[in-house]
Amino acid sequence: MTTAAPILLTPGPLTTAARTRQAMQVDWGSWDEGFNQLTASVCEQLLAIIDGADSHHCVPLQGSGTFAVESAIGTLVPRTGKVLVLINGAYGKRLAKICEVLGRDFSTFETAEDQPTTAADVDRLLHADTAITHVALIHCETSTGILNPLPEIAQVVKQHGKRLIIDAMSSFGALPIDARAVPFDALIAASGKCLEGVPGMGFVFANKQALAAAQGNCHSLALDLFDQHAYMAKTGQWRFTPPTHVVAALHEALLQYAEAGGLPARHQRYARNCQVLLDGMAELGLRSFLPAAIQAPIIVTFHAPQDPRYQFKDFYERVKAKGFILYPGKLTQVDTFRVGCIGHVDTPDMHAAVSAIADVLHAMGITLSSIGSQA
Amino acid sequence: MTTAAPILLTPGPLTTAARTRQAMQVDWGSWDEGFNQLTASVCEQLLAIIDGADSHHCVPLQGSGTFAVESAIGTLVPRTGKVLVLINGAYGKRLAKICEVLGRDFSTFETAEDQPTTAADVDRLLHADTAITHVALIHCETSTGILNPLPEIAQVVKQHGKRLIIDAMSSFGALPIDARAVPFDALIAASGKCLEGVPGMGFVFANKQALAAAQGNCHSLALDLFDQHAYMAKTGQWRFTPPTHVVAALHEALLQYAEAGGLPARHQRYARNCQVLLDGMAELGLRSFLPAAIQAPIIVTFHAPQDPRYQFKDFYERVKAKGFILYPGKLTQVDTFRVGCIGHVDTPDMHAAVSAIADVLHAMGITLSSIGSQA
Ligand SMILES: Cc1ncc(COP(=O)(O)O)c(C=O)c1O
Ligand SMILES: Cc1ncc(COP(=O)(O)O)c(C=O)c1O
Repeated sequence: MTTAAPILLTPGPLTTAARTRQAMQVDWGSWDEGFNQLTASVCEQLLAIIDGADSHHCVPLQGSGTFAVESAIGTLVPRTGKVLVLINGAYGKRLAKICEVLGRDFSTFETAEDQPTTAADVDRLLHADTAITHVALIHCETSTGILNPLPEIAQVVKQHGKRLIIDAMSSFGALPIDARAVPFDALIAASGKCLEGVPGMGFVFANKQALAAAQGNCHSLALDLFDQHAYMAKTGQWRFTPPTHVVAALHEALLQYAEAGGLPARHQRYARNCQVLLDGMAELGLRSFLPAAIQAPIIVTFHAPQDPRYQFKDFYERVKAKGFILYPGKLTQVDTFRVGCIGHVDTPDMHAAVSAIADVLHAMGITLSSIGSQA
Repeated sequence: MTTAAPILLTPGPLTTAARTRQAMQVDWGSWDEGFNQLTASVCEQLLAIIDGADSHHCVPLQGSGTFAVESAIGTLVPRTGKVLVLINGAYGKRLAKICEVLGRDFSTFETAEDQPTTAADVDRLLHADTAITHVALIHCETSTGILNPLPEIAQVVKQHGKRLIIDAMSSFGALPIDARAVPFDALIAASGKCLEGVPGMGFVFANKQALAAAQGNCHSLALDLFDQHAYMAKTGQWRFTPPTHVVAALHEALLQYAEAGGLPARHQRYARNCQVLLDGMAELGLRSFLPAAIQAPIIVTFHAPQDPRYQFKDFYERVKAKGFILYPGKLTQVDTFRVGCIGHVDTPDMHAAVSAIADVLHAMGITLSSIGSQA
């Protein structure tokens, strides 16, 4: 079954290790002490990744990553707050949409999809509007794969005495973030991304003081991070039925994460995957959308071949038949497709994916001229 | 692994079939056509259970059951609506709490925990307060196991021209509900209950007209059932990352549900489980909290033994060591514990559970006098 299923080169759900899926063979009682220990261990291991045990609580939440993002904004931004949302892609836009639906005052700052927000931008914006209480940004904007300069932005936000909310959904666990050096009120990620668990839960690292002051802020019962944390701190249990199998899989994925060498090892493997992909695709004549300097080793956006014989759907199905699932582009102006570098995949898989793509392009009668390495 | 793990006699998460857990061995791409087909098949099978394909949409939602309940109230009750919440236990209280947090006007009607709400009560209440637009009730109140008379209440609600929201979390799939005979705007349940999937998603059967009129009602982005449905109807995909493994498990659980004979077979198996449990426990001298007439075959509340040597924690651990996970009581006034009748368990398991309990009581030095069958 492991080899029969295609490899997911997508930004999550992604290909997981057999051992991770095997952990879902047990039915845990959600009230049972053994399961409480699993949850506590997951939170402890997650906090260790950012060295955040002193400063932050890890609050797990049922649902997809967006649920956790909404819970962080709804709980940590007071109803009288104002959020500056930094946008260079679809997930940044979603942050703004959440503020809008929740009725939190907000303003947006949008740059092009191939242009990171800079700390200087944020400095200027915070000077210009002192009503802003919180800044929200995407660490790795998965719609292109662009990396925003988190540490620099965090320092500026702190200098202004404002609070930071970071959507690190697709970067957490692979790109270093140190809670002792990067001040933030909330950092959000999920089970089914770089930790290589299965999807079904998110989690928020919430600054302890900020969370303690957040009672009654939230617009929702299910998404109330204050209540979620308070109940878990008191009982060791989740407030509502947890996705027990997803939690067990994440626990097992975290054990493997540590065994393999933790964040540095995960970062290196993904960086290698990304480089093999970039080099191989360049050799086929497929250009990446972003310059190497702002490309996170998470997911790569490629320009679609300029050839009338190219159709994404056809291309996708043919590559899938060879065992690899690609991802569609998410840009409105430019025709692109995306290839993920994350999940339980390594250099040989990326080489194989590139040669599958080469074969497919050949079979489709598409010839491109090699453009040399992008690195 | 199947036999080593204890059997869960809890109201979900519960014991699942090996085949169901096996379906979680595949990593599905959430954008892939194969996965879209799984989702569509799940929704179709769910609608068939209530004969609701003509009248209702099935809208799946990430998260626990409470997330789906909140999404139904937030989406289907307009901001100017008023909800009459019928309460005889903890889950009824949660409905009221959701209305409160969401800022929906509501009133409550509470009966004792061993007393079903009656259609006459609802008739009287709707006459007395014509501002009420929606009635919300729990079908099987899992905090005791009591069954509320849904068809009768639904008729009264309809006669008054009001809308009905049903939390059928612990009854759906086991107790018959016919959408052609029981009018409702929303019926809510989840993957990890009587369908014997794993926890991680809920679903709402939403009346088509009511849902079509619900755009913009919702207080939340993640929990907006209108958006969730509209996106899925357009693309075949979930709006945000689905819990792919949970969906695959539910699909497999539904196939087995149909193969085994659908709702009548599930109902009969649970009713048998319940009867074996009630008879066996009565023989041990353990009294059930509810009279048989209002006891749903889902979960049974038992009075704790009146013996100073009885402590739930100790009792629980000893029964667990014999392979069965029980559930604590949820009543504030009376000392009780609960035993579930649902999940991939059958008569022999219930006999074995009763004899494990008998052994444990004996080992704890607790003697009770047999009280005869409750049936
Ligand atoms: C940066 C970022 N934010 C938010 C999300 C949303 O997560 P989900 O689809 O799990 O709701 C994603 C998903 O890929 C993401 O990459
Ligand atoms: C009747 C009822 N409603 C709501 C819920 C809440 O579901 P969850 O714990 O999945 O949020 C339950 C859970 O057992 C239930 O039995």
